[in-house]
Amino acid sequence: MRILLINGPNLNLLGQREPGIYGSTTLQAIEADLQVKSKELGLELECFQSNFEGALVETVQQAIGQFDGILINAGAYTHTSIALRDALISCSIPYVELHLSNTHSREPFRHQSYISDRAIGVVSGFGAMSYTLAMQGLCDYLLSQSKVN
Amino acid sequence: MRILLINGPNLNLLGQREPGIYGSTTLQAIEADLQVKSKELGLELECFQSNFEGALVETVQQAIGQFDGILINAGAYTHTSIALRDALISCSIPYVELHLSNTHSREPFRHQSYISDRAIGVVSGFGAMSYTLAMQGLCDYLLSQSKVN
Amino acid sequence: MRILLINGPNLNLLGQREPGIYGSTTLQAIEADLQVKSKELGLELECFQSNFEGALVETVQQAIGQFDGILINAGAYTHTSIALRDALISCSIPYVELHLSNTHSREPFRHQSYISDRAIGVVSGFGAMSYTLAMQGLCDYLLSQSKVN
Amino acid sequence: MRILLINGPNLNLLGQREPGIYGSTTLQAIEADLQVKSKELGLELECFQSNFEGALVETVQQAIGQFDGILINAGAYTHTSIALRDALISCSIPYVELHLSNTHSREPFRHQSYISDRAIGVVSGFGAMSYTLAMQGLCDYLLSQSKVN
Amino acid sequence: MRILLINGPNLNLLGQREPGIYGSTTLQAIEADLQVKSKELGLELECFQSNFEGALVETVQQAIGQFDGILINAGAYTHTSIALRDALISCSIPYVELHLSNTHSREPFRHQSYISDRAIGVVSGFGAMSYTLAMQGLCDYLLSQSKVN
Amino acid sequence: MRILLINGPNLNLLGQREPGIYGSTTLQAIEADLQVKSKELGLELECFQSNFEGALVETVQQAIGQFDGILINAGAYTHTSIALRDALISCSIPYVELHLSNTHSREPFRHQSYISDRAIGVVSGFGAMSYTLAMQGLCDYLLSQSKVN
Amino acid sequence: MRILLINGPNLNLLGQREPGIYGSTTLQAIEADLQVKSKELGLELECFQSNFEGALVETVQQAIGQFDGILINAGAYTHTSIALRDALISCSIPYVELHLSNTHSREPFRHQSYISDRAIGVVSGFGAMSYTLAMQGLCDYLLSQSKVN
Amino acid sequence: MRILLINGPNLNLLGQREPGIYGSTTLQAIEADLQVKSKELGLELECFQSNFEGALVETVQQAIGQFDGILINAGAYTHTSIALRDALISCSIPYVELHLSNTHSREPFRHQSYISDRAIGVVSGFGAMSYTLAMQGLCDYLLSQSKVN
Amino acid sequence: MRILLINGPNLNLLGQREPGIYGSTTLQAIEADLQVKSKELGLELECFQSNFEGALVETVQQAIGQFDGILINAGAYTHTSIALRDALISCSIPYVELHLSNTHSREPFRHQSYISDRAIGVVSGFGAMSYTLAMQGLCDYLLSQSKVN
Amino acid sequence: MRILLINGPNLNLLGQREPGIYGSTTLQAIEADLQVKSKELGLELECFQSNFEGALVETVQQAIGQFDGILINAGAYTHTSIALRDALISCSIPYVELHLSNTHSREPFRHQSYISDRAIGVVSGFGAMSYTLAMQGLCDYLLSQSKVN
Amino acid sequence: MRILLINGPNLNLLGQREPGIYGSTTLQAIEADLQVKSKELGLELECFQSNFEGALVETVQQAIGQFDGILINAGAYTHTSIALRDALISCSIPYVELHLSNTHSREPFRHQSYISDRAIGVVSGFGAMSYTLAMQGLCDYLLSQSKVN
Amino acid sequence: MRILLINGPNLNLLGQREPGIYGSTTLQAIEADLQVKSKELGLELECFQSNFEGALVETVQQAIGQFDGILINAGAYTHTSIALRDALISCSIPYVELHLSNTHSREPFRHQSYISDRAIGVVSGFGAMSYTLAMQGLCDYLLSQSKVN
Repeated sequence: MRILLINGPNLNLLGQREPGIYGSTTLQAIEADLQVKSKELGLELECFQSNFEGALVETVQQAIGQFDGILINAGAYTHTSIALRDALISCSIPYVELHLSNTHSREPFRHQSYISDRAIGVVSGFGAMSYTLAMQGLCDYLLSQSKVN
Repeated sequence: MRILLINGPNLNLLGQREPGIYGSTTLQAIEADLQVKSKELGLELECFQSNFEGALVETVQQAIGQFDGILINAGAYTHTSIALRDALISCSIPYVELHLSNTHSREPFRHQSYISDRAIGVVSGFGAMSYTLAMQGLCDYLLSQSKVN
Repeated sequence: MRILLINGPNLNLLGQREPGIYGSTTLQAIEADLQVKSKELGLELECFQSNFEGALVETVQQAIGQFDGILINAGAYTHTSIALRDALISCSIPYVELHLSNTHSREPFRHQSYISDRAIGVVSGFGAMSYTLAMQGLCDYLLSQSKVN
Repeated sequence: MRILLINGPNLNLLGQREPGIYGSTTLQAIEADLQVKSKELGLELECFQSNFEGALVETVQQAIGQFDGILINAGAYTHTSIALRDALISCSIPYVELHLSNTHSREPFRHQSYISDRAIGVVSGFGAMSYTLAMQGLCDYLLSQSKVN
Repeated sequence: MRILLINGPNLNLLGQREPGIYGSTTLQAIEADLQVKSKELGLELECFQSNFEGALVETVQQAIGQFDGILINAGAYTHTSIALRDALISCSIPYVELHLSNTHSREPFRHQSYISDRAIGVVSGFGAMSYTLAMQGLCDYLLSQSKVN
Repeated sequence: MRILLINGPNLNLLGQREPGIYGSTTLQAIEADLQVKSKELGLELECFQSNFEGALVETVQQAIGQFDGILINAGAYTHTSIALRDALISCSIPYVELHLSNTHSREPFRHQSYISDRAIGVVSGFGAMSYTLAMQGLCDYLLSQSKVN
Repeated sequence: MRILLINGPNLNLLGQREPGIYGSTTLQAIEADLQVKSKELGLELECFQSNFEGALVETVQQAIGQFDGILINAGAYTHTSIALRDALISCSIPYVELHLSNTHSREPFRHQSYISDRAIGVVSGFGAMSYTLAMQGLCDYLLSQSKVN
Repeated sequence: MRILLINGPNLNLLGQREPGIYGSTTLQAIEADLQVKSKELGLELECFQSNFEGALVETVQQAIGQFDGILINAGAYTHTSIALRDALISCSIPYVELHLSNTHSREPFRHQSYISDRAIGVVSGFGAMSYTLAMQGLCDYLLSQSKVN
Repeated sequence: MRILLINGPNLNLLGQREPGIYGSTTLQAIEADLQVKSKELGLELECFQSNFEGALVETVQQAIGQFDGILINAGAYTHTSIALRDALISCSIPYVELHLSNTHSREPFRHQSYISDRAIGVVSGFGAMSYTLAMQGLCDYLLSQSKVN
Repeated sequence: MRILLINGPNLNLLGQREPGIYGSTTLQAIEADLQVKSKELGLELECFQSNFEGALVETVQQAIGQFDGILINAGAYTHTSIALRDALISCSIPYVELHLSNTHSREPFRHQSYISDRAIGVVSGFGAMSYTLAMQGLCDYLLSQSKVN
Repeated sequence: MRILLINGPNLNLLGQREPGIYGSTTLQAIEADLQVKSKELGLELECFQSNFEGALVETVQQAIGQFDGILINAGAYTHTSIALRDALISCSIPYVELHLSNTHSREPFRHQSYISDRAIGVVSGFGAMSYTLAMQGLCDYLLSQSKVN
Repeated sequence: MRILLINGPNLNLLGQREPGIYGSTTLQAIEADLQVKSKELGLELECFQSNFEGALVETVQQAIGQFDGILINAGAYTHTSIALRDALISCSIPYVELHLSNTHSREPFRHQSYISDRAIGVVSGFGAMSYTLAMQGLCDYLLSQSKVN
């Protein structure tokens, strides 16, 4: 099973700025850690980050036929990008939405998401641990689906 | 008369995904078909597609002095991009807004458009036929304008 | 294929009043022009106009079994008549909604329509040309449907 | 005791269209059935249907002094006609509002009614049975009132 | 100068029902009284009442070229009829909106009017006297306009 | 056929307080009366009342396999309890919502209901008679369903 | 009968500024004209203008026992002053609200009034003529009231 | 470390009803499974379920000093209970909110939660797996906190 | 005169948790203190607390004929319980609403109350002193009422 | 300790008008009564009333260094004056907001207050007794504060 | 060129209270500093402050013909005074709106302004420096305008 | 001190299109002019423009440690980009928001800004002069800050 991890705008700054909100781990460390865990779960993991909405859209489009599941932390685009929503729905790959911080304790405009309602599930608020939990949840879902078929 | 056709995010996927909503024709087929029809109407047609909001903005900007009219299916940016609206208004080229699907039968956030109120007209819901109708409508408008002047 | 064209309140005034918004063509001229074009497309066209909501409702009801498609410019009733919506849905005949002016550039209460979400498609803003485009769109739709069956 | 049954727009289509929502009984059958039941209850029943808002308003106006109670299924005018509300209040005849379908499980614009707040009661969702229940409720109310006086 | 007085739904009941809100004068008495006063002001007055929205729309349409000003008490259609608004704007005849009762002390849905913003002025709350005041205001306006031209 | 009648908070006070709104019949009298009528209709009736949201939820849960239909006057919980809604939907037993008073003539917060949209039908405003009408409606529905199967 | 005319903020500028909206007559001219007309109607008229909300409140308070009716053009305080509303209600003197311009054709914040719902009636849009009409309406009301008593 | 698992209304029905939404595992099976996993993580786990809002409130209150963390699936009370929110905040025990289904793909009234903004994190949509992920996330949080102190 | 003091959910925690918001006095201390003060005022005081909405409803119901006035701090149920409102109105006993904290300086969902509009008065924000002030206000009201009768 | 009592617009009318809402005691009587009670509590009391927003603002400004606490019944300015709010916050003197009537049972525009959220507490609905309760609450607060320092 | 500086309510307190929000400079110091700078720019400057809405209105009215531009910090009246807006528009003198603090980072009711949309420009958030910047902006605008004419 | 000037979408068109709204100066001229003025103030200025949201985000990210302050005219992204807001907050560099036109006199969707509340200050409406004023304001702020430290 092949998994694609997508990180949206400003997540390349992880670990460098605002550790009070986002924790002190860098994105590189999170990705490395996740590679180890994906190996344990027998998954193949690929990672992508961009600050460009269009680049995220195209990455999702190109995932068709290449990946079995997507983990996505869309950052601020979670709340503003219908284009990203359309790409995720079009590509028909099951995805899990995740956030480092608990978006419900932040500004009102972060309480609404354009991608939650079509996700398998949502994980938010556990810092870098959100990535691990989301990957486990996605893996569990894909296994249960493959049994069904 | 020179016409510019602009397609926004995810429209490069046309014909490949969700034919129930968007039909089974590819964007290439639509563009080829439209080239034939534009010849019949004595129009010169140029086509552009991008998933990047900034690229769409710049394409509109560079149309100044190059095109007499614009056909635009802005996809998801219809509902989120004030930048695209600003570019369309700044360039002062008459444009027609079009959609493959009937946006009014879909999610509420697709009922609002940032570009409708400044368009010549809007065509939605006829699948690939929407492009043909929009081009005819634009052509008809440009002819009536040239008579006035 | 038989098509019914329905025009709602105040459209009998077309060409006489407010040409800045609605153009200078009379409804009679539009209907005559459309008769010619419908002949070319091999369609049979019947026309009806009324300022009475009840009369429009009954015309739609009586279309059952008589017509294959409806073109409707419901004028102001577009925004206020649930009865007309109910009649259109009850009669199950495919219909296209059309407007002479671009309703999105006018007062906010004209931005909402009770009939758009169940229409095949919507055409607005091209003046008298809106009728031609809507008829072509309807014709194209009916042909594609008959092929499917 | 004399009762007036008023049916609004599109209810003349009953039994012919959309049986999934409105059932397969025709309006004629409902009225005939209700005549039988009204006889059993010792009531005199008169029936009226129109698709014209103005005709419904005038029927209500002319009921003054002729009827002791009104049963009304105002169809779509339930949600849009203040004129009908005004007529019902002006004539001061007790009335029961009824609907074949459960309006609360349908579109949001059917959740609001201009006539509920001044009705004796409301019955909705029981198909043709709604008419019987509403008549019983109205009859029960009129009897209790006549005892009071 | 020729003036058209238009009364909308349920105003034919005036003087018969709900005198607490609408006063005890009949519409016939108001019209007769207004005929006398219009004579004094050197005006010619014609009166029309209907409970049908479509009939009001057509009366306004046919006023073109026949009348210099319109007095309109649109009753409940004040709050629901965009068709009437369109007719009034299309015919371009100056009009005064009037109401017997003070609509601002009644239900919230009577606080909004589709015709106020394009009227010369609005008079409400003075019972039958509202008609007299509105006619004087209209007359004064027409005189001042004829001086300008 | 076995029917469960559920009454929510404050309905144990019936007949003791606020007879102007709720009538002067006690809940005991209503239940006794309904027992008689259910016998006539060949139904078996069981009655339950509680002021506790949790107790109502559990009563609905325990109805599974025990009852063929539910009559529910949820009182104030109609407007605030999603838990009760969930229980009613989970147990999959057809239910009729009823109210003694016409909730539409009361405070705005009583105009919204969490259980109407999934009910067979709604009866409100007939005082104690609402129970009889609701039971008849439910009975009629269950009979028509049993014929279908 | 003694009448008090109250003018609010900026009305002292009348005739000097923005004649397009407010006309070219000065407040002094309006007051003088109204004095003449009040004599004809057998009324005694007193005039007051202030730009201070507090001064308007106190003028209304001191009118108790001194005046039989109030004519008030509260200007901008119409839309913002609950204190003025309270004073008008406290003093229990019948009042007519008037405006030079048609407030419904202006900015949305001028569509709402804190004093309309308690007024006898409202007159707006007739320029200086609004004062005359309002005085006639008030006079007519006071006469009808004195007959009742 | 001692953990308390709280399940709210209707969750006792798990596995028996609506498996399409909630899965086919019973609450007993989930709790048993979680006991095994908590042992592996060196946690002590206690489980509680109630359909009564008050009972949930008191269970949270009594957790003070007894537990280090709370896992809570508040079911329908998530969206209606400020009392439960107050209890959770008062007791100052870190808690994780979880849901079996993805609440964002369901009715709008399930999109709002009274307890999300004060939770450590939220997990939703993974069926029974949501419990496992939430427990891991809570455990990870408590460990990181104990290192800080 | 007999007074009933009712405290709602989480108020049993008073003095133990969040002293910054609710003060450091326990509910027992407040009740004891209030017993002393009620003696001085010649009142008989009974106290009740519950975290169950249903229990509060029934306590209010059983107060009929037993108490002359109610002091109620409904805690979180202030903002969610229509059932409690109904019980308070049904029992017709004058009541004073009170809060320890100033609810207007807290979350928006605490700004709305279902019981304020039918209360004699409201006291909030004085910590434990709120109870004393509310009891004095209630006592003063009851004395003034007994003089009237 | 020195206390300033501020009364806003129309409160000079107390006891003269609308005793049903505001009671029959005059402001002079209330102030005299409060002087007596303030003596008993060892307070020095000064009283001020104005109908001018600006005068209230300046009185608050000049209280700096002169008073330890403020009692304010801002009347209608409670709901419209941000200037008064700013003055109260700027002067940093603890204040209690009070109202004679229960503002929550009156018009919706009286439910919102610009000064509640920064007040020590709010007392409303007890008639003249509200002044006594507010003074006691303020006194209690000031004493508790002086102990802290 | 003559410039009028107007300061609204509570700005006379500048430098004395809440330096965290408004800075520590007094209004006198700001005015003196501005006099110096206006000299350098060849402007004549007059200064006015009042806490009375009416006084600000009259100052603006009297500026006609006396001043070429206005600098206005309307303080709290920015958000509540339509009367001030009307005066500014009536006098037709170009004005710049300014604020010491960034109103967008404060309470929501300070985000809306009645005077921004008709101002030349807006400057906010720079403390006392806002006055200097606003004067430069106004001066620059007046110079550019005088060149045009 | 080093300053970064960021211009967003469509600002590269400055001086070429819509001079009525944006003035006739090109962006190159503004930047050149600002270079001169920054020299005078002893500042080092760098300029950047892009139509891509992602490019603006990355430019802000890379400013960390390179610049002491940011001047930003985010154009249409002001109203739609949470990603840009996040970047500005993450980088912790003080910034001033500026606009050529007065955004408050334009469409409602331009009245809301995602970046105002965290800016030092906002300058809008002075055309090219807005850049000069914003730079002065930023410079003044940075100087005052450096004195504090």
